[in-house]
Amino acid sequence: MLKRHAAVLSAAGLVLCCANIAIAEDAPSLTERQAQTVDRLIDAGLEDDVAWEVLESVTTEVGPRLAGSEAEARARDWGAAKLKQLGFKNVRIETYEMPYWERVKEEAEIVSPFPQPLIVTALGNSIATPEGGLTGEVVRFRTLPELQAAPETGLEGKIVFVDEPMARTQNGSGYGTAVQKRSQAAVEAGKRGAVAALIRSAGTDSHRNPHTGGATRGGAPTAVPTAALSNPDADQLARAVNRAEGPVTVRLDLQVKTAESVTSGNVIGEIPGKTDELIVVGGHLDSWDLGTGAIDDGAGIAITTAAAKLVGDLRGKPTRTIRVVMWGAEEVGVYGGAAYAEAHKDEIDKHIIAAESDFGAGPVWRFDTGVAEAALPKAEVIEKALRRLAIIPGDNHAHGGADIGAIRGLGVPVAGLVQDGTDYFDLHHTPDDTLDKVDPAALRQNVAAWAAFIYLASEMDGDFGRLPVAQEE
Amino acid sequence: MLKRHAAVLSAAGLVLCCANIAIAEDAPSLTERQAQTVDRLIDAGLEDDVAWEVLESVTTEVGPRLAGSEAEARARDWGAAKLKQLGFKNVRIETYEMPYWERVKEEAEIVSPFPQPLIVTALGNSIATPEGGLTGEVVRFRTLPELQAAPETGLEGKIVFVDEPMARTQNGSGYGTAVQKRSQAAVEAGKRGAVAALIRSAGTDSHRNPHTGGATRGGAPTAVPTAALSNPDADQLARAVNRAEGPVTVRLDLQVKTAESVTSGNVIGEIPGKTDELIVVGGHLDSWDLGTGAIDDGAGIAITTAAAKLVGDLRGKPTRTIRVVMWGAEEVGVYGGAAYAEAHKDEIDKHIIAAESDFGAGPVWRFDTGVAEAALPKAEVIEKALRRLAIIPGDNHAHGGADIGAIRGLGVPVAGLVQDGTDYFDLHHTPDDTLDKVDPAALRQNVAAWAAFIYLASEMDGDFGRLPVAQEE
Repeated sequence: MLKRHAAVLSAAGLVLCCANIAIAEDAPSLTERQAQTVDRLIDAGLEDDVAWEVLESVTTEVGPRLAGSEAEARARDWGAAKLKQLGFKNVRIETYEMPYWERVKEEAEIVSPFPQPLIVTALGNSIATPEGGLTGEVVRFRTLPELQAAPETGLEGKIVFVDEPMARTQNGSGYGTAVQKRSQAAVEAGKRGAVAALIRSAGTDSHRNPHTGGATRGGAPTAVPTAALSNPDADQLARAVNRAEGPVTVRLDLQVKTAESVTSGNVIGEIPGKTDELIVVGGHLDSWDLGTGAIDDGAGIAITTAAAKLVGDLRGKPTRTIRVVMWGAEEVGVYGGAAYAEAHKDEIDKHIIAAESDFGAGPVWRFDTGVAEAALPKAEVIEKALRRLAIIPGDNHAHGGADIGAIRGLGVPVAGLVQDGTDYFDLHHTPDDTLDKVDPAALRQNVAAWAAFIYLASEMDGDFGRLPVAQEE
Repeated sequence: MLKRHAAVLSAAGLVLCCANIAIAEDAPSLTERQAQTVDRLIDAGLEDDVAWEVLESVTTEVGPRLAGSEAEARARDWGAAKLKQLGFKNVRIETYEMPYWERVKEEAEIVSPFPQPLIVTALGNSIATPEGGLTGEVVRFRTLPELQAAPETGLEGKIVFVDEPMARTQNGSGYGTAVQKRSQAAVEAGKRGAVAALIRSAGTDSHRNPHTGGATRGGAPTAVPTAALSNPDADQLARAVNRAEGPVTVRLDLQVKTAESVTSGNVIGEIPGKTDELIVVGGHLDSWDLGTGAIDDGAGIAITTAAAKLVGDLRGKPTRTIRVVMWGAEEVGVYGGAAYAEAHKDEIDKHIIAAESDFGAGPVWRFDTGVAEAALPKAEVIEKALRRLAIIPGDNHAHGGADIGAIRGLGVPVAGLVQDGTDYFDLHHTPDDTLDKVDPAALRQNVAAWAAFIYLASEMDGDFGRLPVAQEE
């Protein structure tokens, strides 16, 4: 693989050095029939009802579907039945094993001086408190770096509270910092002898729905029990600390259930092409347990399934095989993505391009790629076809989606149909991730964009090259 | 009282018949000093920080304060201390007894065919289910009238679900219908042998925070256990009923605690005037237990207290005594308002006018009155003074607020500083009724309006007549 990759890079270098000439002479373009088909697909996408039906179906008939749970197993059965019903072929469930964690109880209250309940949710892989909870004085840190800079003694027996707010942005750029807080607060608290770590939710809303999310990966237990306060509850605890003349004490009671190994799985369906080359698209099937996983990530499943079906409904077989994957267990450690890469490594060269929809249900506003340089003119043709949907050109740094990460690491090129996520972190990982939050018009715009992308990725001559293969860690 | 009232009505009739002349010749007006003072009070109100401090203090240091609870007792102590700290005189707590109800546990889930949790909250005075809950098939009614029109048999053992949505309006006019649903669903369900009644929350938001509220008054137990689903959960249950091929069964587990009699109370403070005539203003001190009672009704307490203090801070005593009342136990049956009327009936003639702020923290946009016809020209002077705050003239049908109802029934005139309640029912009676939902600028506009009103009600010549005394039921 590395050898081939080096060759591709050289080719890309050549193209780059002579870009003007190369593009002028060799720039790919669409046949008239292809251009007309793209237009028809976009028209059909903008009137699509399949995505909404799929999304309503999974959020209603399955509801919350925590990775590794009995509910996720029902979701797999649902997904396989839905793909068959929509006419997909080679529908199957590919299982794998993974560690399991679920919340059983989560309660918090200010004990003194201002007794009142606080709304919290345990973070994924949090260890439990003792039965009945633990009580400690709250020490507030405005940011994670402030906690990281604190002395290594002085917090023994305390409850650390990291109050760092998250920035609202269109592209979700505030999430990286927020995830640091979510994972590191317990680590830093534990180092210093604290008994628990509370964080302000990694979220941008102002409702009393805390945001959950993993505190560790791979089922690793946290250093201390750790939970997120809703934003209004974080405000409240901060005010209590500011207004109290003495210490503020909080009681935290988290109970959890874990298992070393349970079964999860990916659900796969295909529109067979004239060749065994693959276009892989999808979203993740699991959701956090608090909501019904409408924007995270029922929407991704619904959009890519409906778009692939539109391509499949065209007369004749597509050139390449369109493979829809409903990835399992993304939220708790991207187990589905890793299992897919392992199971399909022998056919990895058949993967022409892969992309995941996993940033809600807002409209696509930008088209990014992660392809070999030589393939950029081809990406540009796709990007031009998407302009009708008010989608602008992006860059070639697409990551493709969490579940695509593993096969991207094996050299598979990726695309990013970048969604507007301005309100995504109002909802994600909260009880409020429900169907009513999805705008049907925006969902349809997504279907139109994905249908055009899938069609062109399948039908255009040539491939997208290969990406550098990631070094084994 | 009735005799005097008749005389007032006659006088009002006279004024009405000769309105043009009477108003032209006798129209009250402000002295230059009064007009300047109103301007200064409005200026000061628009820069006020006291209301925010009071509101932050009660919502943070007391938090939720359910009527009759230990938390409401702490709120009374808080209120008395706060009024003293702000310089009010004759501060006291006037207690009364009332029945008690509190939620202990509330859980619901769809059992089949789509197993998943539902978020509910028990309605006030709901009876408990058996321990461990009850399970029944859901029968959905789109509206309360549809349930009321249903046959008296056929619902035995079922769970009634009244799915009626609430309209969003500026003046909260959708709430009357919603309250009917909240109180009558259990009545109608019980008549027909149903085992429980679920309603779509009486609220306009789309978050997973259900709206509580009384299902009965006077501590009367409901016919069957009854609870409200959040709007997204009502959507979900409706979809489940629509999509299921067979019956949808739900398990509901409500546990409650009641007591025949507990102590509650009103907190009273005064700015003594040159006379013992009274201007009574206030808000209610209790809140539902789910939120911290910021908009319902910490804001009312904060606004009226801060406004009265601004008047009290003027040089010299006001002409009339300004009495601030923090009414207890409004939410569960207006016990504080009734107790006040009973305790103060011997001085009821001293009450010149009364008004309560209890519709959130949105800006005042209209000035209503409920005064004798003869006093309308005086009301008009106040209304003109408020125009600077973008407040328009209203009508003479003000109810004055729930806690004012009892003394209004004894003939006391009332005023209504009508707030914009467009978002009020997004928040009220939910966990989301928290301080962050209050706009400091709108809170100040309220303080300015109330300060001007209180000052003019105190200082202008003449009274507001008397209202018809309500017939004893």
